[in-house]
Amino acid sequence: MTASIDPVELARDLIRCPSVTPASGAVFDVLDAALSALGFTVHRWVMGEAPDGPTENMVAMRGEGAPHFGFAGHLDVVPAGDKWDCDPFEAKVEDGLLVGRGANDMKSAIAAFVAAVAEVEQKSGTLSFLITGDEEGYATYGTPRIIDWLNEREVRPDMILIGEPTSVDRLGDTVKIGRRGSVNMWIDVPGVQGHVAYPHRTENPVPPLARVIAALDRVHLDDGTDAFPPSNLEFTSIETPTNASNVIPGSATAALNIRFNNLHKGEDLVRMVEEVAAREAPGATVRARISGEAFLTPKGELYDLVVAAIREETGIDTDLSTSGGTSDGRFLIKLCPVVDFGLPNATMHKVGECAAVEDIRQLAAIYARIVAKVVG
Amino acid sequence: MTASIDPVELARDLIRCPSVTPASGAVFDVLDAALSALGFTVHRWVMGEAPDGPTENMVAMRGEGAPHFGFAGHLDVVPAGDKWDCDPFEAKVEDGLLVGRGANDMKSAIAAFVAAVAEVEQKSGTLSFLITGDEEGYATYGTPRIIDWLNEREVRPDMILIGEPTSVDRLGDTVKIGRRGSVNMWIDVPGVQGHVAYPHRTENPVPPLARVIAALDRVHLDDGTDAFPPSNLEFTSIETPTNASNVIPGSATAALNIRFNNLHKGEDLVRMVEEVAAREAPGATVRARISGEAFLTPKGELYDLVVAAIREETGIDTDLSTSGGTSDGRFLIKLCPVVDFGLPNATMHKVGECAAVEDIRQLAAIYARIVAKVVG
Repeated sequence: MTASIDPVELARDLIRCPSVTPASGAVFDVLDAALSALGFTVHRWVMGEAPDGPTENMVAMRGEGAPHFGFAGHLDVVPAGDKWDCDPFEAKVEDGLLVGRGANDMKSAIAAFVAAVAEVEQKSGTLSFLITGDEEGYATYGTPRIIDWLNEREVRPDMILIGEPTSVDRLGDTVKIGRRGSVNMWIDVPGVQGHVAYPHRTENPVPPLARVIAALDRVHLDDGTDAFPPSNLEFTSIETPTNASNVIPGSATAALNIRFNNLHKGEDLVRMVEEVAAREAPGATVRARISGEAFLTPKGELYDLVVAAIREETGIDTDLSTSGGTSDGRFLIKLCPVVDFGLPNATMHKVGECAAVEDIRQLAAIYARIVAKVVG
Repeated sequence: MTASIDPVELARDLIRCPSVTPASGAVFDVLDAALSALGFTVHRWVMGEAPDGPTENMVAMRGEGAPHFGFAGHLDVVPAGDKWDCDPFEAKVEDGLLVGRGANDMKSAIAAFVAAVAEVEQKSGTLSFLITGDEEGYATYGTPRIIDWLNEREVRPDMILIGEPTSVDRLGDTVKIGRRGSVNMWIDVPGVQGHVAYPHRTENPVPPLARVIAALDRVHLDDGTDAFPPSNLEFTSIETPTNASNVIPGSATAALNIRFNNLHKGEDLVRMVEEVAAREAPGATVRARISGEAFLTPKGELYDLVVAAIREETGIDTDLSTSGGTSDGRFLIKLCPVVDFGLPNATMHKVGECAAVEDIRQLAAIYARIVAKVVG
């Protein structure tokens, strides 16, 4: 059984349901209807309260047994922002562009994958959609809860394609095969506030913090790997709470971010910073938030499938990249090999977000080639 | 000719003329009337526009020839601030305390010196009052303009007593014979702002600034002198203009203050900081504001007079100090030896500023002994 679905029209229907993160409801109804009509069994549930929820998640499956190919994505979008030339939820098509919040990141890719599974006759295996309503937020009730749902039912995909916009200049030029990890830390050095004219009653926190910064700046994390650039530490702010020309501040804080490759774990980097801080500024404390660990999908079948489908449809030799920000691949990698591939991402999150109609149709065609190779 | 003036009542009359810096007008009229009645020739003039002016200055002189003993002070006050229990310009006397803005710093001392010159029969020499309306502000039209006035007329005191509140625990325990210099500097390190994930397009200003701070913290300025504690450098703030956890800031700034003894000149210290900044953070710029150079009145007649008068009146062996903030002595030292001596300063600039009635009367008695020793 095959059907013909216009991915652009389906994308417009999805965009017309505003779904600022975290999302639930109408936008999921639209996708549910499309997949149900294609023979998918759709499971949906809503979790959490504001501000991290309510978040809706969906797992839709068709077929059974191996191979199980999963398509992951999110129906939530970042806030529209202002100064749009048009209604960001009108889904206007003009000059060959579909314009609207989510057109690029990433309702059009979900629509393209629906069109792909409609077109290909599924002869074996399992196809699934793993769709969350919170990828743009904290993901508290997002993809990690989909993984719980799959684990509870002992459902495990063999490979997952995430439809995030990864192309740079031209559709197909870039596939993400892993991402760097990211950790933010805040180093707080306590002091004793007082007047500069009476320093014996004070303790200035600025010089010890400066020594911590200078020492961390000298740390060599690694030289990078074949797949990843060198890990990198950057200070993002320094501050003291008071700002009077005759007052020694009572504390001083530096904030930093480390983007790290898979030679490191976030918690090891936190420990390293804690050790430098303790050595250079006794009494300093380090707060940390690990946004995601580094991950890399090993070379294998999923690479080959995606690279071949892109080359066949576009003639492009795609670049296998680990650059840029994180995606829900940081969670899904726990299940199986994962790659991200989707539209050119120049307008992602911006005012005037859009996708070329031609790119959406070609993305559906590439996705269809991938589906055909796995279950066709 | 002698007269009896109650210094507390005169202080109350002065306080009742609100004179937040820069000051002119009514408060000078009160002092003018008191001094004219005592045979002083009063010269007054107003200079400048907001915000540094208008400022009134007064030179009042009696007698002629040597020795010329000057009393210097200011009639302006810092703003009252709020949360007073009473009207700060009501000059209430309660429980032995005169309460009001200026009661301590330093209308009561001016009143005490008027009472002193009223009481003592002047047999020789010259007495002068050098009174400004801008000591608490930038002094743009303050004491430096009084010095100009004196220089133009070739009038040069042989010694000057400034009535600033210098006592600490008890009236008479501390005389200031010099002050440290003070210089503020701001070190700006330029950078190139950008996203932490793409550091090759950026230049992080934080590590070079940290190296400047750490290097300056290692600089040993001096070991102090007999009269002065060691010079001291303190950082008063560090800051970056942006504060997003994924953005490398476009610049970073540290502010510092150096309190320095008379082994240094302010401009030499600025040059030292500029050299360290240039070495550790090429491209950095240093802004500087020298508030005052260090000065020290050499031992001699003025010391002996003041120390003896305090001992005779109170029995206290006074401490000759160079600690604390600056006064207009930084300017007047260009004319002749200068010391600061006045009331206990615990409430100076504070809400509820006050002076003990008994201290005001005893201060007038000490001042009278000094006057008598010089011109009596």
